[in-house]
Parts: sequence; structure tokens; C-alpha cells
Amino acid sequence: MTDNLMRASVLLEQGRVALVDRPIPEPGPKEVLVRVSSVGVCGSDCHYFEHGRIGPYVVDEPLILGHEASGEIVAVGRGVDAARVGSRVSIEPQRPCRTCSQCKAGRYNLCPSMVFLATPPVDGAFVEYLSVPSDFAHDVPATVSMEAAALLEPLSVALWACAKAQVGLGSSVLVAGAGPIGVITAQVARAAGATTVIVSDVAPGRRDWALRFGATATEDPLTDSPLDGVVDAFIDASGVPSAVRRGIGAVRPAGTVVLVGMGGDEMTLPLSTIQNRELLLTGVFRCANTWPRAVALAAEGLVDLDSLVTGTFGIADVDGALRAARDPSHMKVVVRPGS
Amino acid sequence: MTDNLMRASVLLEQGRVALVDRPIPEPGPKEVLVRVSSVGVCGSDCHYFEHGRIGPYVVDEPLILGHEASGEIVAVGRGVDAARVGSRVSIEPQRPCRTCSQCKAGRYNLCPSMVFLATPPVDGAFVEYLSVPSDFAHDVPATVSMEAAALLEPLSVALWACAKAQVGLGSSVLVAGAGPIGVITAQVARAAGATTVIVSDVAPGRRDWALRFGATATEDPLTDSPLDGVVDAFIDASGVPSAVRRGIGAVRPAGTVVLVGMGGDEMTLPLSTIQNRELLLTGVFRCANTWPRAVALAAEGLVDLDSLVTGTFGIADVDGALRAARDPSHMKVVVRPGS
Amino acid sequence: MTDNLMRASVLLEQGRVALVDRPIPEPGPKEVLVRVSSVGVCGSDCHYFEHGRIGPYVVDEPLILGHEASGEIVAVGRGVDAARVGSRVSIEPQRPCRTCSQCKAGRYNLCPSMVFLATPPVDGAFVEYLSVPSDFAHDVPATVSMEAAALLEPLSVALWACAKAQVGLGSSVLVAGAGPIGVITAQVARAAGATTVIVSDVAPGRRDWALRFGATATEDPLTDSPLDGVVDAFIDASGVPSAVRRGIGAVRPAGTVVLVGMGGDEMTLPLSTIQNRELLLTGVFRCANTWPRAVALAAEGLVDLDSLVTGTFGIADVDGALRAARDPSHMKVVVRPGS
Amino acid sequence: MTDNLMRASVLLEQGRVALVDRPIPEPGPKEVLVRVSSVGVCGSDCHYFEHGRIGPYVVDEPLILGHEASGEIVAVGRGVDAARVGSRVSIEPQRPCRTCSQCKAGRYNLCPSMVFLATPPVDGAFVEYLSVPSDFAHDVPATVSMEAAALLEPLSVALWACAKAQVGLGSSVLVAGAGPIGVITAQVARAAGATTVIVSDVAPGRRDWALRFGATATEDPLTDSPLDGVVDAFIDASGVPSAVRRGIGAVRPAGTVVLVGMGGDEMTLPLSTIQNRELLLTGVFRCANTWPRAVALAAEGLVDLDSLVTGTFGIADVDGALRAARDPSHMKVVVRPGS
Repeated sequence: MTDNLMRASVLLEQGRVALVDRPIPEPGPKEVLVRVSSVGVCGSDCHYFEHGRIGPYVVDEPLILGHEASGEIVAVGRGVDAARVGSRVSIEPQRPCRTCSQCKAGRYNLCPSMVFLATPPVDGAFVEYLSVPSDFAHDVPATVSMEAAALLEPLSVALWACAKAQVGLGSSVLVAGAGPIGVITAQVARAAGATTVIVSDVAPGRRDWALRFGATATEDPLTDSPLDGVVDAFIDASGVPSAVRRGIGAVRPAGTVVLVGMGGDEMTLPLSTIQNRELLLTGVFRCANTWPRAVALAAEGLVDLDSLVTGTFGIADVDGALRAARDPSHMKVVVRPGS
Repeated sequence: MTDNLMRASVLLEQGRVALVDRPIPEPGPKEVLVRVSSVGVCGSDCHYFEHGRIGPYVVDEPLILGHEASGEIVAVGRGVDAARVGSRVSIEPQRPCRTCSQCKAGRYNLCPSMVFLATPPVDGAFVEYLSVPSDFAHDVPATVSMEAAALLEPLSVALWACAKAQVGLGSSVLVAGAGPIGVITAQVARAAGATTVIVSDVAPGRRDWALRFGATATEDPLTDSPLDGVVDAFIDASGVPSAVRRGIGAVRPAGTVVLVGMGGDEMTLPLSTIQNRELLLTGVFRCANTWPRAVALAAEGLVDLDSLVTGTFGIADVDGALRAARDPSHMKVVVRPGS
Repeated sequence: MTDNLMRASVLLEQGRVALVDRPIPEPGPKEVLVRVSSVGVCGSDCHYFEHGRIGPYVVDEPLILGHEASGEIVAVGRGVDAARVGSRVSIEPQRPCRTCSQCKAGRYNLCPSMVFLATPPVDGAFVEYLSVPSDFAHDVPATVSMEAAALLEPLSVALWACAKAQVGLGSSVLVAGAGPIGVITAQVARAAGATTVIVSDVAPGRRDWALRFGATATEDPLTDSPLDGVVDAFIDASGVPSAVRRGIGAVRPAGTVVLVGMGGDEMTLPLSTIQNRELLLTGVFRCANTWPRAVALAAEGLVDLDSLVTGTFGIADVDGALRAARDPSHMKVVVRPGS
Repeated sequence: MTDNLMRASVLLEQGRVALVDRPIPEPGPKEVLVRVSSVGVCGSDCHYFEHGRIGPYVVDEPLILGHEASGEIVAVGRGVDAARVGSRVSIEPQRPCRTCSQCKAGRYNLCPSMVFLATPPVDGAFVEYLSVPSDFAHDVPATVSMEAAALLEPLSVALWACAKAQVGLGSSVLVAGAGPIGVITAQVARAAGATTVIVSDVAPGRRDWALRFGATATEDPLTDSPLDGVVDAFIDASGVPSAVRRGIGAVRPAGTVVLVGMGGDEMTLPLSTIQNRELLLTGVFRCANTWPRAVALAAEGLVDLDSLVTGTFGIADVDGALRAARDPSHMKVVVRPGS
């Protein structure tokens, strides 16, 4: 930090990131300024990097990526207790309007005026300093590492998915896709008391990860027979149409289907199975009110996030981080702007 | 009733029904014998008549159709209070096992061992006498006509759909399809306090029916612009893929989608809309625990079923009834075995 | 309005109100300035007037009462569309913090930092002009009178109570107390499709009001035998311990009990009935997210609020209004600061 | 088993049990005959033994106690697959009517015609052979001991209580009473992902048990300050009025209160706390649909029931078992009719 400038890693155009100087932001009213410590690389970051867009969201001017972030509060804006300075925090990367009907109903993730980090044209967290709403900078205890604090974001997605899937004591769950979201979802399902957690993935190495983190069994969709009407819930973390159809068929009558993976604008679904079994199908779009529970789970050691980190990169090497995150031998890659 | 024989209208094969004599059934333990008064003709009856099958259910031996029935109890089996004789009843056409996990959880409509009237190979209600479980023969007060008592079956489907769609005070609902189910659903939504009930149908005559029975507005899907994210709930009673897709787009974030119409084994659905709006989508398969509420609604006059009956036929003319039910100028056709 | 002063009716001390001049407020950011048209008199206003306190809330300095208000927007603060000027609005008398866990979970009525009109030390609505958050000034259509718009507040309480009581199609409900809240609750229950709505009150005149507005039957708790386990829901709008105990006994197993009336800090309840029937018991504290539905119900004519108004008073006669509101021959009294 | 007689331990009158010969029952239709292996002693058994009654249930003729039972199927009635012979089972001690509205709604625990083991005049499980409905004899895998299989009954109560209390991932729970139900509830809460589980008991030894089995902390209600509005849920397993009042005060707004312990017909409760915080309060009466989940939890080792057994007695010494169960140094006492 020199002369109120900080380093930021900017996606200049599809496939090209560069380190540039940017002014350190001032925390506005009810905001806190966070010195960023760790930022997880998400599949969406990679997608913007490779394709320059995700659906309707197009990168048509320089954009800072990264939205799974942690750090330390170094300054506070008006209306925030100065005692927060020094707090280690996990950042919830959203800024809802707080006044629309969705916000007031407790579903601020569905706010039509949402400002979300690293979604064009809103800059993200591959920076040294970030100003965020104070109540969206959640204190974490010293027992939670800064890497784990960053990964409370995907943990929140998993919590949100398991809540929508009604996973609880004695549940049986099928999870498709053993990437970071799938593996964390398996852990969360287990922490919620699920007694059967089956993770499906075509890659043997990924299935091994799942077995280390919550899965009670795995299946290979290419060779194993599909399950038929036996699990309480199916959570898709793959976005692959064949996996979604196979997974829906695995659910018992009155069970749940939660689609987390992005599978395109349209998908052909097994309608008569959904109807005849009265399945409850829904999707996940960001999450709401999950952070306090995410903090508690990590603090109590009910999920293990640190062991998922397979690579760390400095802010000068976000390009390397984005490429590594696409390498199947990596589970989770983290950028450390503060190092 | 002569010599313990009764008249029954039997579907001998695709397109051919005949009046034959059948033994009057004996009510078994906990059963009651009902002299059948009125039986509504359902789209599924017409479908079996025309095509000889519905999906996996094939009419490969003579089958009695009809499952929307009312009548009077004329005898009781062991374990049933003889005071029930003389009761006017609406028949719930199901016979679940009562011991499986679905039954014990209150979802007996999803019982895998269900015996359902007029579903091959189980005979239905186009007969003079029917024996049913006593608790599935629901008393109706004298203010409810026998026609209305028969139509508590489609009313139950509408109740079930509205419950799953979470329709209530101040709800806005879009219903696709202004056939009997759609029109009754509009009435039920209105009775539940919905303040906006839009019914969509390509036929102007059908839209007029909807406006008479609960709809606050109608739309013509061929000429009106589709609604975008404005209703709380969409209930499909059409089974038409384009109507389903259009309807899903009409639902606001966190709203509900309930698919009642049969639209085939698979359907291409707007996945990203479901995900980005976190819509809750489900289907309807029969119904459970709806009859007591259906009786109460009809008895209190909160729905009007009698006015939906546009044609009545004797048991000797079930053929005519089935053909009339396919005529769009009819709303609901009723067979009267007891006349 | 002269020289930026307005008239306000102030409770100077227990039993004494006076008309004083106060500065017209400036609408702050995201606020609107409302010229107040009608303000319903609530039992809590009367209680403050007579006793100078409600539980822990003490009137120890001059306080403006009134929190059921409607009016017209005459100015907007920063961040509010100027097109709102001229809108006829119903005022939701709350100002939650929007950042605590209760607010973000959609339960802003339970916000520990709530600022609520006419609750010491926060001034209320017996004034000519009031500045409120823009999103808590809800547009009402021209078909809703300003009196009805003011009474959307007690309507909201009734909606909130019926929602917690799970009142819906075919429900049977017992309501204790036929004051304004009880009578509006009966209307709301009926609008939600309840087929049995019994209102209990010791005063014959009050029972007659109930029969005019939603009740299907009434009972006199002094002479009628108590109901035993027959209704789905009991809503207490009396605060009378004997009525609460009697009402709880009326509820069937797995039914609901919602306590709206204030009955003191402690109450002796029939524990074994609650346990053996697994009743769900809760209370009502303000309400959240009810206004849009309240507006829709009033606009659609599903509830009748205007007919409940039995007396109107000018702002110079708030004393008279408060005394009238305590007179059992009145149902609802309204103050009109704008007249 | 000689000459179709078996040994049964009968409560002849208050305080006096005797071993007598009784005919071995014949399994009726859809029933199975179980050779009883283990039977947990419940507080209700002790209460009948000591007082001859529980509330309205009076022991006025000889009664066999015991309702927490496991064993092996040795014969089947009509309509049951003979392959069930040899199965190790946990017995759900209920026999609902299956046809009333509560049963059909999935709440068979509230069936008004319920036949429940060891509740006058229905005999219980301190016998060598017991005939029960086949679907209420739940298979347990070999990894679950016969003692644990018997204790699936209190485990079910704990599951039921935690479900009603909405305990889940990241929940904070206060449990009052560290007897068997309290300690199993603490385990279940932990298995469901609760991150804070505080158990309150006046006895230090009991608090130690709690810390071994799920509690993250304990409190001594005699010396520790009461919690104020900080836990998500309070579950009372004590039945002590002061503990209930203290516990209710510990719950945050919109939290839950579940009363499991029997505290008499009436109890004075903190009404304004329930109202102002909109707490959801309910009770537990038996349980429904819990056994499959209980079996899964025990089989997966997510709860430890075996370690709770501190004493075992033969069927000839039920008197000793009942007296031991009242001794606070015992946690759970088991009778083994099959030994």
C-alpha cells in the first residue's frame, strides 16, 4: 500500500489478466475496509477468464475476478464500531438492496438489484483491499484459517443446497459431481446426519476425494447401474444433462432434487418421473443467511475445508491460479493477495 | 338389483363399451357397499376409451371405467357402524396399503401398492354398486348434490395442486388450460384468497367459462405477450409443453410451479429460469387427505361444481358420455348409474 | 402548514393530550413525506393514554400516539423516484435496522433495533405530516378509501395471525374476542377459505358484529359449553386467561394456537393438552411482509374495513377519539389529521 | 416355551410385580411373533410401579410393563413374508387404527384409537414373546446390538423432539434434564449438526454423562446465570416448571420450545416472552415415522446407545430393574427376557 494505491489483478479481456494499480477504496457508511488475505478460485472465475462471459453476463470492460474471500478489517466507515478493526473476517460477496420484497422476505439472494462481486460490471476480490458492508464481513474465530474463511463461500452454497434438499438425520443423498461443490456438499450432508451419501463422478481420482470427505459410497455413472427411486434427495453439482436425468430417477417418491450445477438455458427432464413421484425440484442461486452457520460449522470442525486446498498463488500469478483451477488434479486453488 | 346382479358398463376393447351384468359385490371388513348415483367422466376415461392405454397402463382385458363417484351406502361390512347405511357419500377412489412408509407418512397417494379405481386391471365406478373402504366413503350433507359429490374428485386434485403451489391470501396465480381441472383450480385459488387468478386457454369459449368461475382475468397464449416473473404460482392443467414453458417464465423468483397436466415422459424445461429464480417445481399424482376439505368447501358453497355439469347420461349410454366429454362445447359430463 | 410548522396531538402525560405545533419533518434519504389522512385508534393508544405505559414501555416525556396511518406522498427524499409524489399510501409503521440476522432472515418485525411508531420514545402518526421509509409507504389503488388504507395495519396483524395459525381452505377456526382485531381476523379467515369461523365474546353486540363480518357462528363463553378438540386453530384476540385456556381446549391434535391479545407477563396454560395433542402455540409481535397482501385483499374487496369505522374525529379531538375507542358501542375509531 | 406358555412379569398392584405364566400369543394377520431379547426400563414404567397410575391412566388390573423392546422374529401371521422369520428387530410399541384423519395425515402417534404397549389396559413387553404388526417390527442390521435396538424407542423420542425443535446444521440448543432422554437428545442434536448443545442439570454426575454424549457445554441451573435469548431451540426433558421457564427465556426470537418432560396438567409459562419473541412452542406425544431414521443412525454409529446401559436384569428380576432405574447412579436399565 503506497500512496493509497493497491495492487489488483484485472481481467483485461478473454484470457488475459494483468496486475495493475488501483486506488484503495474508502469504506462508506456501514462498510468496513478489509485487507484481503485469501480468495478461492471458483469455476465461474475460470469461465469468465476462458470465455469472457457467462450467459448474459459479458466482460466488455476490464473486470477484477474472485468472490470467495477472507481477510482482516483495517478500517471502518461511518456507523460501524471501531472495535471491529483487527477482526478476521469471511466476506459474503453480496450487496442486496435491502428494501425490495425479496430482501424483506429474507431471500436477499434473489434481489433484482443485487450487486455481486466479480459479476460484470462489478469488480471482485483479487485485490489487496476491499470495502464491503459491515454485516457481510463475518467474524471468524482464530481456529478457522484464512483459507477456510475464504471457502465459507462454497460451503454456504453447499449449506443452501442441502437445506433446499431437506437433508437431515438419516437422509440418503446422491450428489452428482465430485468437484469442490460436490465434495463440500457431501461433507455438509454428512454433518447434517445423512446416513447415506453417494457421490457420482466419472473420474476415479475425484471419487477418492469424495470418499475422504463425507461420501459413504461412490458410483461411476459410466459403468454402474442407475439407482431407481431409493434416495431421499439428489443434488446436482455437475451441470451435465445425463447426470441430472440419472439423478432424478434415483429419488424416491416425495423426495427432493436440487440443481446447483449450471447446465444451460434449457434441459430435457424426465417429466413423468417428477410428476408420478411428486418430486420437489428447485435450483440454487447464490445463498442467503448461510454465513453464521458456515462459520459455526468450520469453527466446530464439522467440515474440513483446509484439506481441499491443493494450490496457492500470489496476486501476481492469478493467471496461473486460473489455469491450475481447470486442472482436474487440483481440488481447490487459492489466491493470496496479502502474501 | 335382481338376483344379486347389477348392470356395469365395460370397456371391452379400445373404442367399444357394453352394458353387462356383474355380481353385486359384498362389502368386506371395514368396507361399505354404495349404490352409485353419479360418476363424472374424466379425461383419463376418454383416453383409455380412445387409445386403450395411458403410458404403461394398458387395457388388455375388459375394464370398467369411471372414478369420480358418489352414491348412497346400502350395506356395511364387518367393523363398520350399521348407522352408516343411508348416508350420502362421495367416494375417494383409492385403496392404499396403509403400512408402507409413504402411507404412514401421510402420503398415501404415493403408495406403491395403491389400488386405484378404473386403472387397469382395477375396475371403476360405471356400475350400479361399488364396495369401498368405509373411511374413503365420505359423508356429504344434503346441501351437496350427488353430481357435486362426484365432482369432489377433480375438486380434490385442484385442492392438492393449490396446496402444493402455496396459493393463499393475496396470491397471484396463472393457470394454463381451462378444462374442468383448470376451471375448478381457478375457483379453488379464489376461495383460498388469491387476488389475481389468470387463466390461459386458446379457446375463447373456455376462457369465458374461466371468467365465470374464479378467474380475475384470462389470456390467449396465441396472441397475448407472455408474462415475465410476475405471478406467485403457475399451475399447468394443459399438459402442453409450450404452455408449461410460457407459464414457468411467468413466475417470480421463489415462486412455485405445479404440473398437473400429463405432458409425456420427458419435457424440455427452461432450466436457467428455474435455477436463477429458485422456483419450486413439482407435480401432482392423485391426492391425499383432501376429501374432508373438499366436502367442507362444497357444503359451504365456496366452489360451484353443479354449474360445470353440461351433460348427463344413463349407464346404458356411457359410450355417448365418453364421446360428449371429448366435445369442447361440454365442460363436465356425468354418468348416472342410479337413474 | 404555516412556516414549516404542523399540528400534532401530543400525550403530555397520562390522561392528557394537547394540540401543539411541531416542525414538519424533512424526508431523509430513501424516505417519503406523507400528508396524513386517516389514523386508526388502537387499543395500545388507549392504554398509553389511560395508564401512561404498556409493560416496560413508559411514557416519561411527551409522546405522539397513533400508528395505523394513511395519507398522500407530498415530497420525497434522496434516492426516491419523484414520481411517487401524489401517491395515496398506507403506512407500515416500522423502521427495522435491515442488517441484523432477524431482518436479513425476513423477520424484521423481530428486529432488536426496531423503531416503531407511537412506542416510547418514538412519536406516532397523530400529526399532519410524517416522514417514513419509502418502501414502508405502500401504494393503494383509488378503490381503497383512506380509512381502509389506515386499517391495513390491523388487517396485517390479522393476516399475520392467520398465517401463523395455518388457516386455509376448509379450516375451522375459533377466535376469542370480537373487538377490531377479532372481527378482522374472522374476515381474513373466511377470505382464506376457512369453512368454520366461530367467534367467542361475552358481549352480544360484539357477537353480532362478528356475524356480519366473517363468522359462521358465535359462542358466549359464559353460557355455552366449551368446544373440545374440534377446531383446527384457535386465535386469541382477547388477552383474557380464561378465554385462552378455553380456546386451547377447543383445538384438535396437531392444531395451532396463536396468541395475539396481551395477557400479561405470565399465564397458566393447560400444559398436558398442549403436549398430548402436540399443539403448536405461538404469539404475534407486529408483522412482516404483510402489507402487499393486505393491499391486494382490500383492493379486491375480500375484506370490508370501511364498515368497521364507527366514529371519526379531527386532530383537535384526539382526546375524544381515545375515549370513544374505549366505548364498547364503537368498533373502530379513526382520527383524520388531514380534515 | 413349554406347552405354549411363556413367562411374563406382571404388575399385580402398585409396588408389586410377579412372574407368571401366560399363553404365547398367536400372530394375527399382518403380525409377527417376536421372541423378546431386551427391554429398556422407562420412567413411565417406574411411575406405574410406584404410583399405580399416570394421570388418567390407572392400573386397576394386572398389567405387564415395558415398551422399549427388541427381539427376533420367530413366526409370522397371514399376509407376512415367511422370510422375515429370523430377523432381528426393534419394536415400535404402537398400534394405530390407520383409518382416522390423524393416521392418514401421517400423524399416527395422535390416533385417538391408539393401542400403546404398557399403557393400561394394554400389556407391554416384559414377556418372552410378543406379537406386533409386521411393519412396526423394524429390521436392524447385525452391527446394532439387541440393547441398542431396544433403545431405538427413546432415540425415536429424541429424534421427534429435535425435528419439532428444527435442530439442524449450526443450531444452538439448550436441553434441560440429563436423564436418558436428555442425553440421547444431546447426541441427536449433535448428529444433526448442532454446533452448540448445552445440557442443564442440577446433578454433577448427570452433567458429566451429558458431556460424554453430545453436549458441548453444561450448566447448573442452581448456580449459573440463566441464558437470555441466545439459543435457537430449547428442549425440556425434565418436566420441572422452573427449568421450563428458565429454558424458554434462553431462546432467541423466532426460536423453538419443545416440551418432552411431563410437568403436570397445567404450568405457568412466560407468556410475554413467547409473544414478544414469537417463539414456537409445542409438545411431544409418542412419535411417528421415526424408526427408519433411528435404525439408520444407530447402524451408522452416529449415536451411541450401548454405552448408556448401566444395568441389566433377567425377567425374574423386573422388580430390581424398576428400583435400579430410579437410582440416579444408573443411566439406563435393561431387562432381558430372553436370557
